[in-house]
Amino acid sequence: MYEGVVQDLIDELGRLPGIGPKGAQRIAFHLVAADAADVRRLAEVLLQVKEKIRFCEVCGNVAEEEQCRICRDPRRDPSVLCVVEEPKDVVAIERTREYRGRYHVLGGAISPIDGVGPDDLRVRELMERLADGAIQEVILATDPNLEGEATATYLARMLNPLGVRVSRLASGLPVGGDLEYADEITLGRAFEGRRLLDA
Amino acid sequence: MYEGVVQDLIDELGRLPGIGPKGAQRIAFHLVAADAADVRRLAEVLLQVKEKIRFCEVCGNVAEEEQCRICRDPRRDPSVLCVVEEPKDVVAIERTREYRGRYHVLGGAISPIDGVGPDDLRVRELMERLADGAIQEVILATDPNLEGEATATYLARMLNPLGVRVSRLASGLPVGGDLEYADEITLGRAFEGRRLLDA
Repeated sequence: MYEGVVQDLIDELGRLPGIGPKGAQRIAFHLVAADAADVRRLAEVLLQVKEKIRFCEVCGNVAEEEQCRICRDPRRDPSVLCVVEEPKDVVAIERTREYRGRYHVLGGAISPIDGVGPDDLRVRELMERLADGAIQEVILATDPNLEGEATATYLARMLNPLGVRVSRLASGLPVGGDLEYADEITLGRAFEGRRLLDA
Repeated sequence: MYEGVVQDLIDELGRLPGIGPKGAQRIAFHLVAADAADVRRLAEVLLQVKEKIRFCEVCGNVAEEEQCRICRDPRRDPSVLCVVEEPKDVVAIERTREYRGRYHVLGGAISPIDGVGPDDLRVRELMERLADGAIQEVILATDPNLEGEATATYLARMLNPLGVRVSRLASGLPVGGDLEYADEITLGRAFEGRRLLDA
């Protein structure tokens, strides 16, 4: 519908996740009217990301060097490993400031519908990291959905024979939430996982 | 929270309209994992837009030459002019295939709250286009909201003394909609604008 380059831009933007045709159009016209310097900065940072960013050779997180910031940090506890699906999960957990161990990023979750099996994830790399016995606990922090649960179950079965402690993040009512609005599954999990309160 | 360039990319993406912090993060990680060629194509089209796209010197629409495709098309009726706020409105109207006249893009609407007055829009250029008397009808197709109505009212007052026919797009119930779900103002407009049905 638009003249050449504007339509190209709308098409390219529309391929990004979470941007529909209307959103792509809106962003494209914003960019047409924006300062050339701003648009150039966006284009340059796009190119830099592909040049500079790689995945950490140890944990699979995004990194600007061979190893990511967390794997390079000697203050992080090497005996605890938290397994997550994606680099953004690392950021979410880091934000809590609760965890001082290390990470392992799988690069997704097991999903037969999407054709993703264990071999498509960094499972082999995980097993290799456990080989020397230095890791004493593995916390499975995959998403609390169908794929994440399946992945956690699969990994627990692989890890339990190794004698390492395997744990899973607690499911339950979100803090600040309203019991009345919780879905049945979450509420059921909250019952299952109830804790005794010592007087 | 992220290493250098990834955070830069999230920041730049977050400045685009309609992309929040979560969306920016999602797109950034999509791009980190995407083919380098795809990302390079997006970066290049961004740079091209700033190089190639300008605004049509006649109507203010986006154009790759001095004049846009519609202004260059000799088959378009030069006696009818449709006034819209933005280039995307031109595309929306073109999609109907109902209109064969020409356009005038204002570049926005009058909005005292945002500090946008008639001098910030292409109103002077509109008056100049009407000077030679070739245009017989001006259709005011600004948005059916507060700013669009104010702009249409302002323009109608400017144009009526010139003896040109001035019309406004009809307001009423959207086709395919449900009367029950229409808001009061739309329903009121639909009553006001009711048409006699000839038997």
